[in-house]
Amino acid sequence: MQKSFIEVSQDSHFPIQNLPYGVFQLKKGSVPHIGTAIGDYILDLTMLEERGLFLLTALGAERVFSERTLNAFMSKGKEVRMQIRTVLQTILSEDNPLLRDDEELRTASLVKMEDVQMLLPVEIGDYTDFYSSREHATNVGIMFRGKDNALMPNWLHLPVAYHGRASSVVVSGTDIHRPKGQLKPADSDKPVFGPCKLLDFELETGYFISSGNKLGEPIPIDKAYEHIFGMVLINDWSARDIQTWEYVPLGPFLAKNFATSISPWVVTMEALEPFKTKGPEQEPEPLPYLQSKGDWAYDINLDVFIKTEKLSEPFKISGSNFKYMYWNILQQLAHHTITGCNMRTGDLLGSGTISGPTPDSYGSMLELTWRGEKPIRLPDGEERKFIQDGDEVIMSGYCKGDGYRVGFGDVRGRVLPGL
Amino acid sequence: MQKSFIEVSQDSHFPIQNLPYGVFQLKKGSVPHIGTAIGDYILDLTMLEERGLFLLTALGAERVFSERTLNAFMSKGKEVRMQIRTVLQTILSEDNPLLRDDEELRTASLVKMEDVQMLLPVEIGDYTDFYSSREHATNVGIMFRGKDNALMPNWLHLPVAYHGRASSVVVSGTDIHRPKGQLKPADSDKPVFGPCKLLDFELETGYFISSGNKLGEPIPIDKAYEHIFGMVLINDWSARDIQTWEYVPLGPFLAKNFATSISPWVVTMEALEPFKTKGPEQEPEPLPYLQSKGDWAYDINLDVFIKTEKLSEPFKISGSNFKYMYWNILQQLAHHTITGCNMRTGDLLGSGTISGPTPDSYGSMLELTWRGEKPIRLPDGEERKFIQDGDEVIMSGYCKGDGYRVGFGDVRGRVLPGL
Repeated sequence: MQKSFIEVSQDSHFPIQNLPYGVFQLKKGSVPHIGTAIGDYILDLTMLEERGLFLLTALGAERVFSERTLNAFMSKGKEVRMQIRTVLQTILSEDNPLLRDDEELRTASLVKMEDVQMLLPVEIGDYTDFYSSREHATNVGIMFRGKDNALMPNWLHLPVAYHGRASSVVVSGTDIHRPKGQLKPADSDKPVFGPCKLLDFELETGYFISSGNKLGEPIPIDKAYEHIFGMVLINDWSARDIQTWEYVPLGPFLAKNFATSISPWVVTMEALEPFKTKGPEQEPEPLPYLQSKGDWAYDINLDVFIKTEKLSEPFKISGSNFKYMYWNILQQLAHHTITGCNMRTGDLLGSGTISGPTPDSYGSMLELTWRGEKPIRLPDGEERKFIQDGDEVIMSGYCKGDGYRVGFGDVRGRVLPGL
Repeated sequence: MQKSFIEVSQDSHFPIQNLPYGVFQLKKGSVPHIGTAIGDYILDLTMLEERGLFLLTALGAERVFSERTLNAFMSKGKEVRMQIRTVLQTILSEDNPLLRDDEELRTASLVKMEDVQMLLPVEIGDYTDFYSSREHATNVGIMFRGKDNALMPNWLHLPVAYHGRASSVVVSGTDIHRPKGQLKPADSDKPVFGPCKLLDFELETGYFISSGNKLGEPIPIDKAYEHIFGMVLINDWSARDIQTWEYVPLGPFLAKNFATSISPWVVTMEALEPFKTKGPEQEPEPLPYLQSKGDWAYDINLDVFIKTEKLSEPFKISGSNFKYMYWNILQQLAHHTITGCNMRTGDLLGSGTISGPTPDSYGSMLELTWRGEKPIRLPDGEERKFIQDGDEVIMSGYCKGDGYRVGFGDVRGRVLPGL
């Protein structure tokens, strides 16, 4: 197994097999740089690019790592990405002296994670959110329409999705203000104005587009993979009571656009490649434009923790897995563009809430507490039906390799009262 | 009445009272410049800025007109916009010699409209589409749910909206490819794949955000106007059959994201100011955060024409007016941000289809032909239920002043077969 000269603990999310990309600045203040994570360190790619370390790749003298987001690098596509990955794995390898034995270069290019603040890594053009977990769609369907009409007639034929709000996508660690809006009490025929009472998280992953397509020219499913750069964790914060009142007939709007948190490290498809696995059987067979060949689910463990003001440490409230997704990422992208919709570098496509088959693997409070009917009991005796002010929600995700992990780190966000 | 030394016909959309902003390049090829429309000419603001004509405004030496979009200028807000308007009205005025008598400067800065190609004027961050015409919502409601349930319970309490797709917003004149996708025939329980059969337009206007707000901090309704830069016409192309199958429960997705056309000239709120008028009575009274003071409807005539391959000239199929909108632009913006959703410079907020009270004022083929039951008869004997390949849809809009018009020009798009 390949190892780095930098010590990486066995349960670290960032071994040499991962090498995700992110944007950071020093806590004490600095210009944002692009980096890759290795153990507890960040390797400063902006610095390495300045030093000419990527001159022999297809990038040549082009300065993609001198930008303040990953977009320029992402737009280069898979070949450049693979070359950079090879360079990074080589210079970080335990038996390569270039960086290992050059103290000056090490000091200049390696930064401790604890010394940095991570920034939003990508300039997001459009954000789309799918609804691709059968378990989640079924749970929600049972709650709102009963068991017999749980899945809508279209659900098994196409990956349902809606357009989200790109401006309010924030990086992990950003505080979230409880939204206010119109709520309709069950015992009234008029809405009232007030703070959301049913604030929820949604456990999701998302992927970023590397290179896009022209308007009018769909991306065929067998080319879809080439357009995908890498993945992040998403907490798609949701105001359930605002949603219930507003969403018919045009879908969720204010209930979803006050904040969407993403993890700061974008894990590339190359790093995730060893963890591909078989997804759920699809019956009925999808239409030809949605038929993907091979295994396109990914075995990514996903955990959700809550940390209230009283709790001394985060408490795990759900453990799910990305492999449960019914519609895979190729199907999502092929469907999204089938009408000719154009993708651009930096577009973010979310999975939708990822619920597993068992009640302890559901991806939202709505499902975990079954609309509040079964509150979650916390170790200190507190109960939670939905998210309270002061609560921090933490999601973490990783793939389990043989003796190593390829992980996402986490996405966290604390809820503050509305302004 | 103020007049320009440049001849402007009485029915021109672009007198000195208008001065909308756009981005153009010469048909023979050139770098994109920012300009304002005056009669049949464009005044090149990039050129004027280089010559120092705006040095005495609050812009000083800042080069906002040297960008390839209006965003930098838009972000400056109302005060700068008013100053630039004053400069432009002054130098274009019939009694000011500065430009009038300087042949060299006139030659350098005035371009004939017929010699240019207009470009997308704004880099759009997020695009939101409202559903604010009561007549439209009622018509659609009657068709799909019957007369008694036409308006959904939330409709009179809040301006319903959904997030649209920013990447596929295109400038007038861009050809539109007929989308393909899943359609569910009425006599089948399974969807089929094929080209959209019920392709439609939607007659809309939209406004651009000048300066935004911080995430978590709503824009109060009495501050909303300060955040609005100006307006355009929108044709929100819609695939009705794709929509019917996909839209429950998360709203329109592929049915709307294959193309949205906008007019190239952004008409400022200052130019529209004289045309403010009283909007429809609102009953029930909106919640306090949605109560706007004064008249916030705008008297803008809106016409829709169709030009088939056989027709020798465009034929008018609808005449509506923006003043019919139930929810005004301040209410829309206050509602959009009430949960804390952040706006950014360049965000586009569409009105939704603007239908008037009479059948000849409906803003979509769906309504004009009542789902195809009453086809439109064209002068050459052709009929249309929805839009056919080869058809061009042209929308035009103007306000009628005393002896002049403040207009938008038009937004046009021709439908080509799907790729």
